[in-house]
Amino acid sequence: MSQDTVTLEGSLADRSRWSAERCTIDAALSVVSTRSAMLILREAFYGTRRFDDFVERVGVTEAVAAARLRELTEAGVLRREPYREPGRRTRHEYRLTEMGRDLFPALLALAQWGDKYLTGEAGPPLQWRHEDCGAAVTTTVTCAAGHEVPVGALSVRATRRRPR
Amino acid sequence: MSQDTVTLEGSLADRSRWSAERCTIDAALSVVSTRSAMLILREAFYGTRRFDDFVERVGVTEAVAAARLRELTEAGVLRREPYREPGRRTRHEYRLTEMGRDLFPALLALAQWGDKYLTGEAGPPLQWRHEDCGAAVTTTVTCAAGHEVPVGALSVRATRRRPR
Repeated sequence: MSQDTVTLEGSLADRSRWSAERCTIDAALSVVSTRSAMLILREAFYGTRRFDDFVERVGVTEAVAAARLRELTEAGVLRREPYREPGRRTRHEYRLTEMGRDLFPALLALAQWGDKYLTGEAGPPLQWRHEDCGAAVTTTVTCAAGHEVPVGALSVRATRRRPR
Repeated sequence: MSQDTVTLEGSLADRSRWSAERCTIDAALSVVSTRSAMLILREAFYGTRRFDDFVERVGVTEAVAAARLRELTEAGVLRREPYREPGRRTRHEYRLTEMGRDLFPALLALAQWGDKYLTGEAGPPLQWRHEDCGAAVTTTVTCAAGHEVPVGALSVRATRRRPR
C-alpha cells in the first residue's frame, strides 16, 4: 500500500467506479476560486472593512473588488453593514461572518505551504502566535484522539446518506 | 479589540502602513490558483496517476489536464515518471512529491468548510479517519502548546529578516 496517498475504503476502494460529483473541495472552490477572493478574505482577517482599503491592500481594480465583495457577501462569507461619516452619505463596510471566519484554516494552510516552499532564503515573512500562551500556530491534520495524521495514514469512506 | 480578526502586532499594527508584498498565500495561489489544479491534486491524493484518468475523474479537457499537469510538475508539486505497458510506447504517470503532499491540509480544510456550509441536508459525502486509531480527522489551527486557536486569539508579527 502506498504511503503517498489516501486509502480509499468500502464503496470508494476502486477509484474507477465512482465519480466525485458531491466533492466539497469543488463546492468550496465555487465560492473562493479566485486569487482576488482569497486575498480579499486575507484582508478581512487582518481587519480591513472598507471598499477603498480592499482595493488598495489587495491591489485590484475597483471593478474586481466590487465583484468579489458582492459574490462573497451573496455566498454568506461576508456581511455588509452601513456606516456614515459626518457630512457624508451612507456607505457600507464588509465583515467576516462565522462562515467566513471558518475559512481561516484553509488560508493559513496555504500561507504555511508558501512559507515552507516558496520564500527561498528570505524565509517566512510572518510569525503566527497564540495570543494567550505565545506558542507558534500551525494548521495541522489531526484526529479526534490527538494524533497528527500524515497523508499515508488517512482513510476515507462514503458517508451513508441520511434518511429523510 | 475585535474577536473576529487577527491581532496585528509590532510593525504590522497599523494595516495602512505596510504592504503584503511578500504574502505567501498569494505565492501559494500562484501555484494552485485554479479549480482544475486543485482537483487534479485531489485525484493525486486519491491515487490517480495516469493522464487519461485525470481527464476523466476531474472532468476537464485533455488540453486543460495537460496544461495543469505540466504546471504542477514544473512547480515541483508532482513528479513525472515513465511507465510502459507490454507492446505500447513509453508513457508517463504523475505522483505527488513531498511538496505536493504538504498541500493536503489546505485541501482538507477546504473540503471541511464545504462539508459544513455547502452540503445542505445531504451532509458531508465523505468520512475522513485516522487508519491507526479510527478517530475522525480534521484540519485545525493549533499552537505548539496544543491549544486549538480561534481567529480572535491569533496574533501575527513580521519576522525579522535573516542576516545574509
